[in-house]
Amino acid sequence: MMNKKGLLIVVSAPSGCGKDTVISKVLEKLGNEASLSISMTTRAMRPGEAEGVNYYYVSVDQFKKHIENGDMLEYASYGSNFYGTPIKPVKDMLEQGKTVFLIIEVEGGGNVKKIFPEAKKIFIVPPSMEELENRLRGRGTDSEEAIVKRMEIAKTELERAIEYDYVVENDVLDEAVSDVMSIIRAGQLEIKYMQNKIREVMTNA
Amino acid sequence: MMNKKGLLIVVSAPSGCGKDTVISKVLEKLGNEASLSISMTTRAMRPGEAEGVNYYYVSVDQFKKHIENGDMLEYASYGSNFYGTPIKPVKDMLEQGKTVFLIIEVEGGGNVKKIFPEAKKIFIVPPSMEELENRLRGRGTDSEEAIVKRMEIAKTELERAIEYDYVVENDVLDEAVSDVMSIIRAGQLEIKYMQNKIREVMTNA
Repeated sequence: MMNKKGLLIVVSAPSGCGKDTVISKVLEKLGNEASLSISMTTRAMRPGEAEGVNYYYVSVDQFKKHIENGDMLEYASYGSNFYGTPIKPVKDMLEQGKTVFLIIEVEGGGNVKKIFPEAKKIFIVPPSMEELENRLRGRGTDSEEAIVKRMEIAKTELERAIEYDYVVENDVLDEAVSDVMSIIRAGQLEIKYMQNKIREVMTNA
Repeated sequence: MMNKKGLLIVVSAPSGCGKDTVISKVLEKLGNEASLSISMTTRAMRPGEAEGVNYYYVSVDQFKKHIENGDMLEYASYGSNFYGTPIKPVKDMLEQGKTVFLIIEVEGGGNVKKIFPEAKKIFIVPPSMEELENRLRGRGTDSEEAIVKRMEIAKTELERAIEYDYVVENDVLDEAVSDVMSIIRAGQLEIKYMQNKIREVMTNA
């Protein structure tokens, strides 16, 4: 039976749903109890970045070796660069009892439970497709064509929400944050994480 | 796939852990969204009580008929009277989308999931056995012998916490209430209850 082990929280959402904002607020609330998983990349370190803070920086050969060795929880390539999540640091943080957040693409979400069956997978949805489109337009960073493309991808991703454990609507930010906090707290109260507590109560006679 | 259906929350705890106080606070917070399950009894209605408020009042023959017909979720007899939970009103409240609380003895908890596999079973524990004993003594209602007996039963019951989904410690009342609220909220966000939401988001284009 597992005890005092941290929770792994996997978060995915269509682009524009505000998943990064929600999770950064949750991380703020949890302080030292929680950590965001750090990705590994083959792209060069940029000014102001640091090893193990923004990314773990490795060569393409090293990255491929990690894939071969089964060290990666998930990975993807963009252009000539690889990006992915190494298993080891996630495992270490969980052993320390931390809540670990893994923000990943819907594509990569499927594999996590093979390695961490206890992971809680949260899918964040917008209040409506109309609102999502408004938000994407509001950012002012995408061309009309890019927005149409993003909306198509969002639809495909929403159809895969069924692969997740929980759905959180990000309409009012504070409510979405509170919902994620409830999922984490409920996870911590699951009997498998409370074995020590029961033992503690019973021996403290 | 289930949708908009309410959650069934089963709560058990050793005597003196404050489960009734915790649940009445939670019911206060949830207002119309939630209901406490009403038991059925063969004992006579007392002054000030009302049918369907305190209990459903039936004859011993009627009660036995309900047992035979498989209408009861759980039941027990004390002296010459029967007490139990009829399935039908619980089912009806769940269909209305309500969160239904069922406060039952550790003994009766085992059967609920056979009829309501989605039920969330919460076990409330005291901070320590010492504190439990202090609380029982503080009530001033039990003889020394009765307290020793209650403590023995409490130990046996704590050993059965493993049959529950969640463990909530009732040390600080407000924290216990907040923990139960988190379990309920997380339950409502489970993908099987969010199917309609996803559909709503996708069609509202």
